[in-house]
Amino acid sequence: MSPDRLAIHTFTNKPWSIGECIENYSRRGIGGISVWRETVAGEDLKSVRRHLDDSGLQKVSLVRGGFFTAIDQAARATAIESNRAALREAEALGLPMIVLVCGATIGQTPEENLDQIRDGIAALLPQAESAGIRLAIEPLHPVYAGDRSAVASLRDANDLAESLNHPLVGVALDVFHVWWETGLEAQIQRCAAADRLFAFHVCEFKPDFDHVLLDRGLPGEGVNASARIAKMVQAAGFSGLTEVEIFSRKYWSENQHDFLEKIIKSCEPI
Amino acid sequence: MSPDRLAIHTFTNKPWSIGECIENYSRRGIGGISVWRETVAGEDLKSVRRHLDDSGLQKVSLVRGGFFTAIDQAARATAIESNRAALREAEALGLPMIVLVCGATIGQTPEENLDQIRDGIAALLPQAESAGIRLAIEPLHPVYAGDRSAVASLRDANDLAESLNHPLVGVALDVFHVWWETGLEAQIQRCAAADRLFAFHVCEFKPDFDHVLLDRGLPGEGVNASARIAKMVQAAGFSGLTEVEIFSRKYWSENQHDFLEKIIKSCEPI
Repeated sequence: MSPDRLAIHTFTNKPWSIGECIENYSRRGIGGISVWRETVAGEDLKSVRRHLDDSGLQKVSLVRGGFFTAIDQAARATAIESNRAALREAEALGLPMIVLVCGATIGQTPEENLDQIRDGIAALLPQAESAGIRLAIEPLHPVYAGDRSAVASLRDANDLAESLNHPLVGVALDVFHVWWETGLEAQIQRCAAADRLFAFHVCEFKPDFDHVLLDRGLPGEGVNASARIAKMVQAAGFSGLTEVEIFSRKYWSENQHDFLEKIIKSCEPI
Repeated sequence: MSPDRLAIHTFTNKPWSIGECIENYSRRGIGGISVWRETVAGEDLKSVRRHLDDSGLQKVSLVRGGFFTAIDQAARATAIESNRAALREAEALGLPMIVLVCGATIGQTPEENLDQIRDGIAALLPQAESAGIRLAIEPLHPVYAGDRSAVASLRDANDLAESLNHPLVGVALDVFHVWWETGLEAQIQRCAAADRLFAFHVCEFKPDFDHVLLDRGLPGEGVNASARIAKMVQAAGFSGLTEVEIFSRKYWSENQHDFLEKIIKSCEPI
């Protein structure tokens, strides 16, 4: 696909400031942007908002909320407060969606974690409604199910979204996390048919990764599932921008303009 | 549980020869043994068989067959030949079961891999029947779904075994691989109700692992799921030995007698 059909997550170009991301994406004809809270930490949000508005980039999402689970109630309440702050930031920046990495806590069963996640999202809904901001549950690869997200498959994410049954609650589907899942096409169709396929991210899983978080691949690398899953998503009627979210110490060590060109080229066949 | 209810995989004590494994497990009152092909490579199988028989250890399984997938037909045929050799080794050693790590090939979809796995297992069935050896499909954690096993959940393993529908085809369930799975209890019951729960392995997943293959934990470490899942397995009627299969450069660097004591102690609460 062409660059104007892509949105890039600011953390993909971690060495760049928010200003550099906006300028460089816009100049290169990228269609949209998803803003990481880390990238705008300490920035004046009003001024970032103006910069975003002036750039013509489509504002896709704020990344990320979530981490709802904890053994004790006080820590879960703190997590909800952090998500309330994220909702305020998204509103300030004019971002219509927050991606949720939902959390997992060692010592709790998947079911206990999922119950706390459901409660956490439900607690945010009144504020999300008044702000008009969508909450996108991102299923994470099960390698992260111990301490990052008990929502470990699209099937799980669909079940969770269905149980919440709210028009502002949907799913952010990332190739990196779900390429291994059997029955994926049916789960994508289920998600889209319920108007819950809110976002689609591309990034490849490398079986020979040298770091479990920070050695992710461009479309076509590793298990090479981006094009296959993009077809399923398009066939299910998804019409949003395709988001590029890649964490890579290797690519972060390169010139970020060169990396941006590699991203654009790797997404051409999708 | 007490040591006599445990079986140990020889690869757990990688620094030991097969002779040392047999002697030390037997001396310490361990109930059984699962033999890795790597541990007996180059050994005289008749003499190992006599040693095993004399030890009084229960002979649980040969580990491991599988790796059925490949892009080209010739490579898949070679894989089947390797599995035929494994069946002959299991027969020679008097081991009644082979654990299958089923394989995955980059460039194939999960469904393509699963079709090849199904064909591979089916091709072995006549020889397995004449030898009276059971084939246990081991679902692997999805972190290995790119290049080791497309069977990435107990749900997948149950579906595959059900589609083969043969009394010699069942499942080897390892805590390390399935602790993250939602609906696990129902899948364990489904597996056991169909007389397909052939084996149960304990080993813990550590979210902060330093190596994706060789940094596994004792029961109680990491996500601490062994006791929880052992309860489900016992409630479903599993009455076999609980197998300890841990790959760990850390523990391999220790005195193996000390490691064996740690294993026994870590399994007491299960």
